[in-house]
Amino acid sequence: MKNFTYLASTKILFGKNRVEEIGNEIAAFGQTVLLAYGGGSIKKNGLYAKVLQVLERSSINVVELSGIQPNPRIESVREGIRLCRENKVDFILGVGGGSVIDCIKAISMGVHYEGDAWDFFIRKAKIGKVLPIGAILTLAATGSEMNGNTVISNEETLEKRASGHDSLRPIFSVLDPTYTFTVNTWQTAAGVVDVMSHIFEQYFTLDAGTFVQDAMAEGILKTCIKYGPTLLDDPENYEARANIMWASSLALNGLTVTGKMYGDWATHGIEHEVSAIYDLTHGAGLSILFPVWMKYVLSDRTVPKLAQYARNVWGVGHMDDHEAALEGIDKTRAFFTSLKMPTTLNEVNIDDKYIGQMAEGACKFGPIGVFQKLGKVDVEAILSQSL
Amino acid sequence: MKNFTYLASTKILFGKNRVEEIGNEIAAFGQTVLLAYGGGSIKKNGLYAKVLQVLERSSINVVELSGIQPNPRIESVREGIRLCRENKVDFILGVGGGSVIDCIKAISMGVHYEGDAWDFFIRKAKIGKVLPIGAILTLAATGSEMNGNTVISNEETLEKRASGHDSLRPIFSVLDPTYTFTVNTWQTAAGVVDVMSHIFEQYFTLDAGTFVQDAMAEGILKTCIKYGPTLLDDPENYEARANIMWASSLALNGLTVTGKMYGDWATHGIEHEVSAIYDLTHGAGLSILFPVWMKYVLSDRTVPKLAQYARNVWGVGHMDDHEAALEGIDKTRAFFTSLKMPTTLNEVNIDDKYIGQMAEGACKFGPIGVFQKLGKVDVEAILSQSL
Repeated sequence: MKNFTYLASTKILFGKNRVEEIGNEIAAFGQTVLLAYGGGSIKKNGLYAKVLQVLERSSINVVELSGIQPNPRIESVREGIRLCRENKVDFILGVGGGSVIDCIKAISMGVHYEGDAWDFFIRKAKIGKVLPIGAILTLAATGSEMNGNTVISNEETLEKRASGHDSLRPIFSVLDPTYTFTVNTWQTAAGVVDVMSHIFEQYFTLDAGTFVQDAMAEGILKTCIKYGPTLLDDPENYEARANIMWASSLALNGLTVTGKMYGDWATHGIEHEVSAIYDLTHGAGLSILFPVWMKYVLSDRTVPKLAQYARNVWGVGHMDDHEAALEGIDKTRAFFTSLKMPTTLNEVNIDDKYIGQMAEGACKFGPIGVFQKLGKVDVEAILSQSL
Repeated sequence: MKNFTYLASTKILFGKNRVEEIGNEIAAFGQTVLLAYGGGSIKKNGLYAKVLQVLERSSINVVELSGIQPNPRIESVREGIRLCRENKVDFILGVGGGSVIDCIKAISMGVHYEGDAWDFFIRKAKIGKVLPIGAILTLAATGSEMNGNTVISNEETLEKRASGHDSLRPIFSVLDPTYTFTVNTWQTAAGVVDVMSHIFEQYFTLDAGTFVQDAMAEGILKTCIKYGPTLLDDPENYEARANIMWASSLALNGLTVTGKMYGDWATHGIEHEVSAIYDLTHGAGLSILFPVWMKYVLSDRTVPKLAQYARNVWGVGHMDDHEAALEGIDKTRAFFTSLKMPTTLNEVNIDDKYIGQMAEGACKFGPIGVFQKLGKVDVEAILSQSL
């Protein structure tokens, strides 16, 4: 187990009607808030009106940034920064899924920075002073509500890049499972795959002696496997929504990577290239790529961990590690299929046209991954095998 | 799953030599620290000298409180409060196990309170302004390093009582597994039992739909079962010490009780009565009482959870819930025995003399427990069956 520092500083307000409490949480930081959200579904389901009511009760002034898209764009970030500066905003409140929360993090780091916010994503600028942020989660998937990470897309350059810092962890996040009742089957399933993939990225490493972390990670995976299918048939099942929602936050708040050097993140890197070009739902891209990646990286060096996964998560009985690993991979793919997620690029109308470009982009800063280092040729092979 | 608020605000500095970093952490709060510790083992192993060196490097003035005993006494708390007031202490640093950390929490709450600190433990006073605290852990057991709970003994009244508040969570805790290399077999095993018992108290409830919490709890239990025996043979096994140490913090930082009304805590309540009179090691008392409690509370209502424990933690194969539960309880007792922990009161020279008084004390504020409510008669029965 490696040395680590762990401080999950986000206060989680979990459960029904916790939105009522955000006025006090925000007022501690000031009286002007940037309220950021996406396409307006929160106006239909009443959450928007409720948030305004709660903020008004605490005499908080509201500036709005709407229209934040899935795979949030750097343009929204720039617009948010402009609004924060013009209105002397004290606090940014994001209402939505990971896209909205990622966007407000990028705004938060950009407000006090003189250059362009994209600089943070191409490693040209370091994160300094940030604006405090809070989140009201409406989609269980990215875990952005409890960490300091953000992923932003740049349409001009067809890039999707990550940045982050512990100072960007939300001050609070409201996790009310009822807000996810209306999430459709596709997005729900993609969210479950996303949660599992976050565990995969941190679980599949070559670090030794991280038993307690792995045991908890396996528990989170089993939670996804138990409740994912329930939600396809019964989208308003509170127990299932609650377990998936809490699992989504726990999967990427740093807990399961404690004691490890870092996660693998190669598959996320590849998926970002795919969805930067095709605007594919992130979880759907991961559903296609992860089983292929697992098989591609299977080797004498990696087989013990893949076999451990197969046995502890899927209850695979094979005594032979290699056979067990293969069965675990098959079960993973079959599970994603049962969630009606795609497992080939063809299913989502993606052909081989940009494979070279995507592989190039994924390895822009050198080889990716730690479980198995992948160069451009490897990424091309994984993408080809995903067709 | 019930509504919950979760904020584990303690910054964990885990791994070798992290003590080097505490100067900066403390200096943010002021320049005068109360350094609290126990019987002086830290002087023998060099940790005391190292801490003084690090504090001096940050120009921090040190006031000392030594001699804090296992099952820390209210006298030490009063002495610490006096020292803090006289020296205008800004920060309290505890170096030791749960006893030292519990003691500094009680000091922390008492400094700004005009009455006697024992008032907090008999529910006569509410926790108000506290002094910030930090910990350097030398024994993996209580989890006090990552929560706001404290248990203090009063020799005059033969009472051992708990108090706590989120504001008492340490600002930071140094978890360096090498500091536990010299912990003897008895204390190491008692620590492992203590960690497991914290999970038991939060796992064995009648709450429904807390799958993800229970899955993580089972992972922590499996960690104890894997590494506990290792440490008896190989006390300087870093991997085992590290896993047990991180497990000890995760077992009682609030994580596994999220979404539940509260834990059971009856067995802890009973054990506190025993160790208040006999000064028994806490973990040894729990080793005796827990298997007896499990069997005593086994009923149609509780059997599903006890069977779940048996299957998921011990891999018990029985299809019948009742049989599975009984086998899980037997395996628990056998495991404690394998750790050379006692499983009867007679083994530690405790007879039935004070059973009535202990049962009375345990139920002083009414029946205890939530998995199965226990009155005085029940506690007497559990103690009698533990002889």
